[in-house]
Order: sequence, then structure tokens, then C-alpha cells
Amino acid sequence: MLRARRFPRVPSNASAMTDAFAFSVHAVDGAARVGAIATPRGEIRTPAFMPVGTAATVKAMYPGDVRALGADIVLANTYHLMLAPSAERVAALGGVHKFMNWPHPILTDSGGFQVMSLAKLRKLDERGVVFQSHVDGSRHELTPERAMEIQRLLGSDIQMQFDECVRLPCARAEADRAMRLSLRWAERSKAAFGTQPGRAIFGIVQGGVETDLRVESARALTEIGFDGYAIGGLAVGEPQAEMLATIEAVAPHLPPDRPRYLMGVGTPDDLLESLSRGVDMFDCVMPTRAGRHGMVFTRRGRLNLRNARFADDPRPIDERSSAPAARDYSRAYWRHLVKAGEILAMMGLTAINLTYYQELMAGARRAIAQGGLADYVAEVKAGWAEGEKTGA
Amino acid sequence: MLRARRFPRVPSNASAMTDAFAFSVHAVDGAARVGAIATPRGEIRTPAFMPVGTAATVKAMYPGDVRALGADIVLANTYHLMLAPSAERVAALGGVHKFMNWPHPILTDSGGFQVMSLAKLRKLDERGVVFQSHVDGSRHELTPERAMEIQRLLGSDIQMQFDECVRLPCARAEADRAMRLSLRWAERSKAAFGTQPGRAIFGIVQGGVETDLRVESARALTEIGFDGYAIGGLAVGEPQAEMLATIEAVAPHLPPDRPRYLMGVGTPDDLLESLSRGVDMFDCVMPTRAGRHGMVFTRRGRLNLRNARFADDPRPIDERSSAPAARDYSRAYWRHLVKAGEILAMMGLTAINLTYYQELMAGARRAIAQGGLADYVAEVKAGWAEGEKTGA
Repeated sequence: MLRARRFPRVPSNASAMTDAFAFSVHAVDGAARVGAIATPRGEIRTPAFMPVGTAATVKAMYPGDVRALGADIVLANTYHLMLAPSAERVAALGGVHKFMNWPHPILTDSGGFQVMSLAKLRKLDERGVVFQSHVDGSRHELTPERAMEIQRLLGSDIQMQFDECVRLPCARAEADRAMRLSLRWAERSKAAFGTQPGRAIFGIVQGGVETDLRVESARALTEIGFDGYAIGGLAVGEPQAEMLATIEAVAPHLPPDRPRYLMGVGTPDDLLESLSRGVDMFDCVMPTRAGRHGMVFTRRGRLNLRNARFADDPRPIDERSSAPAARDYSRAYWRHLVKAGEILAMMGLTAINLTYYQELMAGARRAIAQGGLADYVAEVKAGWAEGEKTGA
Repeated sequence: MLRARRFPRVPSNASAMTDAFAFSVHAVDGAARVGAIATPRGEIRTPAFMPVGTAATVKAMYPGDVRALGADIVLANTYHLMLAPSAERVAALGGVHKFMNWPHPILTDSGGFQVMSLAKLRKLDERGVVFQSHVDGSRHELTPERAMEIQRLLGSDIQMQFDECVRLPCARAEADRAMRLSLRWAERSKAAFGTQPGRAIFGIVQGGVETDLRVESARALTEIGFDGYAIGGLAVGEPQAEMLATIEAVAPHLPPDRPRYLMGVGTPDDLLESLSRGVDMFDCVMPTRAGRHGMVFTRRGRLNLRNARFADDPRPIDERSSAPAARDYSRAYWRHLVKAGEILAMMGLTAINLTYYQELMAGARRAIAQGGLADYVAEVKAGWAEGEKTGA
């Protein structure tokens, strides 16, 4: 086991309250790092999992409960909010934090990924992308300049450059073209971001699963200079091994003193494997979406509560979870609610999953600080395997 | 204004903790009464509004939050629970209180009303009713004996006799026939209920809007003898005036020392008018169903949050509500969530409505105790009218 190397805290980051955006690494364990991002809206402990609040709501959760279960930051989607209720409306109402009653940090994506995955009739060129809303067919444009303007209007603490995200698998020439376009958009995004004290802009590494393109993208973004660096365009269907190989190839070429954010990832296993390779931030719809569909993540693996074997099961989901929903009701009750399509099932199972994700990250942070990440990962995976074996 | 007459409390009911089911009237104001039902599971303050927890869940609410906003008792539906997950399964899991994590009193209906309104292919005769599930078409039978057996298996604190509820308008001969059948079923229900210490069985007055039939039903049920008396078959589309006239005609023929329960009612105005005529208990899906559809009840009347006029409205729903959802978010935010079909809208607006209903009842209880019910009702209605006038 590697012994953790401890870094002295940078004095200006020593307090959680700060006027500046700043990242500090407190300890490393192998490639993994534990640290914190200081922002005027509070500290983000890293590695961090960011619950997804697409339309300015983490689905089926009160914001106070999202906070109470351990989240320091949530993500909101530029694409959804520009369509409804519109960035200008949110700005007039005092910004997205006030709008959704979440006074803590918020990261917004740039809309690029959703335009590719949700919108209809896209026309993409050097300037940006014109598309039709998936809701009402109305016509909209996103450019690097407009994407940054929207994020500024929302009042986002961490804003993402506008990029083009290709689908995998993807021809090398296509990955190359999109990566270079994303680099040109990165420069325009940074210029449009300007100076916003206490707020940050992150660049996004692209390049498909072509390692050399990824490295070139990482180096060029570092040259431009960002407050943090995201790895985009992964977890879009490729095998986990390819995703991890890409992270391993890219991480060494990103500045060690800036946070690394793996976008849209993933399963609990993806998170452990990726943070072990130096990733500091994650977001994913998995815990919330799975919860709405009757699946929970636990110390003992996944449970699909639609399964008939839970119909008479008086046991709680997990008596050691800090989520009341995991302790105070039987599996039989959750199965009943899931089968009946009851909203309480979506609420309770979402809360259980988000709690599990946060507990997983808190455990990883403790383990990295103590130089025991490998043991922690092995122990967590043994719990999943044991649960799958015994059906519990 | 009438001065409230105060009754001495019956010693055996003086404590909220009791082994017996007992009702005590603490004060009256005109026909209205304020009091309490003592049960082994806690006290029910009357007049009481019971949130509806059809499938053993008050939709979109954690049970702890239902309790916290002031509900002493919830209703669960025999029809739904017999179909899924089944009364025998709930019993094996420890009863409906444990199943839904609600340790406080629960009232169950007998299934009769839902069989008439939801089930398919009914065959009704003296013995009972055979019907097909509205979910999967499976065949089931409900008789007075089976309806009581199900409620006993669920472990319900207040169990309802099995009755036949006719649709209004209804020919006199049909109302007469159903009322007499319900009386015979009342006797069989009471015999099947047997002796269950700490639990109660209520009879149900039927007879459509035929006053003489209602009075005959009330007298005959009193002759049989029940722990409480419900008025069924109202609020099924008839004008409010007909409903209130029926309550006025029936109430004097019900024992004054037993609670009176108006089933399935109603709007805030229905509640005030009915409790003014001597009703002690209510249940209705209105606050929960309306909340799920974007409508809230407030001190200033109803707000339909689908309305475009709320799109830029920064004001809270009601800054004086004790519901955080009514205070901590703008109307613009709720409108956004309602339009987007977000679950949080259903959660928050349901909580706002249930809070309003409980606050309305708490205010009525205080007013009756002080002999000021008429003033209270006038003041509440003035608030609604003022809100409707100013659009707030």
C-alpha cells in the first residue's frame, strides 16, 4: 500500500470561506487525490459526486435534503434551462441558486452534450450549432459566446466551455475534427467568460478513445489555461476498460494543481476506478434515474425492487445507511410502492442512492487521506460481491 | 356570536394515552364541536382532516412529514390494499402501520365505494359484491365479513362497515334499496368486527339526498350501535347546498357523544360549512390530487400554477404558511416545475395543500373552543375573496 503524501495547505485556501475559486490537494494516494475546492458559496470536498439537477431540481428531492445527505455541489443543465424557463428569466429572478433554493455551489454544463443527444435538426458549423427544442420544436442557437452568456446569467459557480461531443464508436477523423473544433471553441469560451471573481471556467478534453488526440487536447487546453479540466465524451457506451485507459493517458497531461472532472460518470465501480486514477469530480444521472426506476445501490450491491423475491421481505434496504428511507421501511414496502408507481418510491429510492454515492465518496476521501485507498476499494467491492452472492 | 358551552372532560378520556377508543367533546359552538378521539395509537383532535393514503402512502409525502404538518390520522383504502399487496401480506409484515411507517391512528374504508367507482364487471347481491380488479382484471369478492376481515388484518384503528354507495342523482327507489341493504350489511359488519379492544367500527348513513331515508338510516344505525357514524354517498357531484341540507337533517339523529365523519369531503369551504353543522372528521383526495396537478389552496384562495401570470412572479406561495415549500421558493419556480412535470412540484404543492388543510382545521378547533367559529369562518372566506380579487 502506498503511504499518502501530505501537502501543506495553501494559506489562501485554508478557510472554506473565500472570495476566490481555488483548489487544494490535501493528500495523494497513488494517482488519487483528496482535497477541496474553495468557492465563495462554500467548499467542495473532492473527490466529489455532483447530483444532477437538470431543470434546476434534483428530481424527487428537496434541495435541503440533497445538502443534508452530503452533497456540496449540484449540476444544472444549460440546455434545459435555456429552453425553460430561459436564462434571462432565471437571472431576473435572482439567479439559479435562489431559483432552486440551493445556496451552495452549482456547476452548469455548456449545453453541447444535450444538443447532440436530445435536440432535433441540428446544423453545426464553426460558429456554433442551431437546433430545435425537443420539447416544442422552437429554434435556438448555441455558440461558445451564447453558452457562456447563459451560464453567466444563471450565475453558475463552475461554467463549462462549449464543446462538440461525438458519439462512440467514432471514426478517428471525426474524433480529430470535433476535438480541434472544441479547442477553438475553448478559446472563444474563455474569452467570453471574461473575468468573474469567485467563479471558474473549465475546459473539456475531447478526442474519443484516440489516446494521442486526447493528450493533444489536454496539452492544448492547459496552454489556453483553465480553472479546471473536464474529460468529456466518455461513458457513452464504450467498455469501462477503454474509459479507464483514456483517463490514465490523459491525467498526467493535466495540471496537478487543478481539479479534474469526469463528465457523466458513472456506476459506483466507475467512480472508484476513476478516482483511483486521479479524477476529482463526477456527475451522473445514474443514482437519481435508477432510483426512479426501482433500483438501489447499497453496500451489498444493487437491488432491483421490481423483483418478486422482495414481495415478503421484511428487511430494510440497508440498516447501516444514513438514509432514513433505507432503514425505516421494509423491502416489501418499497417493492409495493414501485409496482404501484407511487411517487414516494421515487423519492425514497433516489434519496437512498444519492446517500450511497455520497457515503462512497466520503469513504474514498478518508481512505486517500490515510493512504489506504486500495484497501478501501477492495473492501467495498467485496461487499458488493458478497451481497450479490447471498442475494442480499 | 354564540358563547361556547364547555363540557367537563370524561375522566377516562382525559389522557391522550388510553387502551380504549373514546370520543370526548371539549366545547361546542352552535352545532360545531371541538374534541378529541383517544386511541391506543394517540389522540385525534377533532374536527379532523385525514389525508388520504390510498395504497398505504399519502402520495408524494414521507409519513414523518405528514405527521409534522399536523395530521393525527390518515386514511388507507381497503380496495387498493386487498388487490396489492393483499391484506394477508400486510398482516404478515406486521400490519399497515408498520408497513407504511405511520405509528399513529389509521382509518380504513370498507372498499364499497371504490368497488362502485373503479372496479369492472360487478355483480351485487345480498351476500356482497363480486368484481374484477381495475389493475389486472383478476376476480375478487367483498362481503361485509370479508371487508371486516381485511380491515382487521390490516390492523386498522377505525374500520368502516361495508356499504353500498349509489351514484347521485339517483331514483328514490334505488336510494331506498341501497340504504336498506347497507343497514343489513351494517349488522353483519358489526358482528364480523366482533370485539377488538382499542379499535372502532363506524356505521355509514346512506339514503341519497332523500332526507327521510337519511334520517331512517341514522336512527337504525344508532339502534345497532357503532363507535362513530359516517355520512356516506355525498360530495359525488350534487350541489353543496344539497350536501349541507343532508348533514343538517342527519346530524340531530346521530348520538352526540359519538364522532361524525363526512366521507370524501371536500374543498376548504365544504369543510368549514360541514364542521359548522356538527361534522367531526373528514377525508378527501382534494389537497393531494390538486397538489399533483399544480393547484394550491392558500389563505388567499386557490392558485393554479399552470397560469402564465406566475412565470415571472418572485413571490412565495404564502409567506405565512408553516410549509417550507410555501415560503422558500418563488411562484415562478413552482410554475416552472409544474410545466416541466417535475416530481418536486408534486411533493411541494401536496405539502403546501396538506399544511393548509391542517392549519384550517386547527384554526376551526381554536375558534370553536373560544366560541368564535362564525367570525373565523367569515375571516377565512374574506381572505379567499380578497386573494381572488387582487390575483394574489
